[in-house]
Amino acid sequence: MRLVTYEVDRELWPGAVVGEEVVDLSSLARDLLGLIDLGPQGLEEARSAVERRAHVLPLSDVNLHAPIPRPRKNIVCLGMNYAEHAYESLRAKGLPPSLPEHPVFFTKPPTTVNRPDGMIPLDPAITKELDWEVELAFIIGRSGTNIPRDRAMEYVFGYTIINDITARDLQRRHQQFFKGKSLDGSCPMGPWIVTADELPDISNLALRLRVNGEVMQSSSTSDLIFDIPTIIATLSLGQTLEPGDIIATGTPSGVGMGRNPQVWLKPGDIVEAEVEGIGVLRSTVVLAGA
Amino acid sequence: MRLVTYEVDRELWPGAVVGEEVVDLSSLARDLLGLIDLGPQGLEEARSAVERRAHVLPLSDVNLHAPIPRPRKNIVCLGMNYAEHAYESLRAKGLPPSLPEHPVFFTKPPTTVNRPDGMIPLDPAITKELDWEVELAFIIGRSGTNIPRDRAMEYVFGYTIINDITARDLQRRHQQFFKGKSLDGSCPMGPWIVTADELPDISNLALRLRVNGEVMQSSSTSDLIFDIPTIIATLSLGQTLEPGDIIATGTPSGVGMGRNPQVWLKPGDIVEAEVEGIGVLRSTVVLAGA
Repeated sequence: MRLVTYEVDRELWPGAVVGEEVVDLSSLARDLLGLIDLGPQGLEEARSAVERRAHVLPLSDVNLHAPIPRPRKNIVCLGMNYAEHAYESLRAKGLPPSLPEHPVFFTKPPTTVNRPDGMIPLDPAITKELDWEVELAFIIGRSGTNIPRDRAMEYVFGYTIINDITARDLQRRHQQFFKGKSLDGSCPMGPWIVTADELPDISNLALRLRVNGEVMQSSSTSDLIFDIPTIIATLSLGQTLEPGDIIATGTPSGVGMGRNPQVWLKPGDIVEAEVEGIGVLRSTVVLAGA
Repeated sequence: MRLVTYEVDRELWPGAVVGEEVVDLSSLARDLLGLIDLGPQGLEEARSAVERRAHVLPLSDVNLHAPIPRPRKNIVCLGMNYAEHAYESLRAKGLPPSLPEHPVFFTKPPTTVNRPDGMIPLDPAITKELDWEVELAFIIGRSGTNIPRDRAMEYVFGYTIINDITARDLQRRHQQFFKGKSLDGSCPMGPWIVTADELPDISNLALRLRVNGEVMQSSSTSDLIFDIPTIIATLSLGQTLEPGDIIATGTPSGVGMGRNPQVWLKPGDIVEAEVEGIGVLRSTVVLAGA
């Protein structure tokens, strides 16, 4: 299923997209987090509702929001999880090439979440180096601590796309990544969550990012340094993962910081983040306050 | 007021501690986050309820929990915000002394929150270098973005103590601080929130941390490199702060990592984090799973 959060009359509801229609799932849960909390039975009831097509709206009549518009905690992201991106990042800082021996984790607060076809605010007084990062993200479906690598995939509810928009100047200025990753609207997410059963093999999904139609990033999840089972096993060590947790797996090379000359986002830019098997997540950069 | 979350019959409720009693505030809001959301009027009604002493329990009859047992997002912490601590941290890593030119921010997830007199789990298979960090934390009372420094204090709802328990080996191994700061139970918080009106001057509060009665940290908030107005102004740049956000201001020198020889927490240790004008936050280290 392709699970969405859709807007009708300024209210948000959970649903599933089938072709050009949205099947309403609000009889099962108030939102997608509530549906995830229901576990396998919730998924089963959602499938049944989709088959019955009881409450259906044309997709063109609704606005899609981020599938999880308000996560219950910060989104966890991986830094430097593709070799070529690690090299371009270090080169941009004048450092010698090296690869992380362990996953590098940081977070983005819930206030960063942005919707499909949303506006990314850019305030030139705050950042002059706004950059893009297409990422495959996954959503945790059940609670677990010290999850063994060989059972990790049982904890994955589904997948979505995240564009980990980053203010490089703030990221550098504040040493830890958090501030540069946390501007309002800097986490476009969606357009939907593809449930894990519909993407049984995520080992070789193409990722692409285009700015105004020009391909800037093009890679595959086969180039991940730390795969999803390793990420789950490592992150859950002594640290409980919970249903609805969102973890973004890192970005491949081709970010604006790594280019020669460097390229930064500017008002009017259209950014499309694409992951094979999920879809395209489009955003428009706008002047903040405009 | 000293606002608490207290437990009766396995349910958590908001209250205010007055002497040896707790005044129940559950007629105003379901929890302290709900009370904070009510803004100045909520505070006014809480004060009135405290004066009326309508529903009162003996403090000895209830268990205190962290004032905000489940924050709505990760807790933001500052790294290296006391000069002597910055020096001891760099020395422990074999690096030359320097001070950050800008605040260093990282986060701890809601799953780290621990209660007063709580147990801090220690799993020697996960960390062999568990350390302490007493910190003055503040709670945001109203929403704001790009908050000017000279109005920042208007956004502070109150203060509490946080012990930013840190697994130094994980902090080092994963480069970014997040993983080493995020073990379950690694954020003792409390014992209460002291509302801002009761602590009008936080520029020179004594901080102390004892392990088994021995003083390990002893400093004052007068030694903060970046004060609370600077923290709020910097963090809120392009990033909306929300009611209930928790921000810990950093720890002074005297952590276990900085000592010679280094000292790590072990099962049975009693850790007391104290901030003048707030109180004492006590925790016991226990073997995980015990």
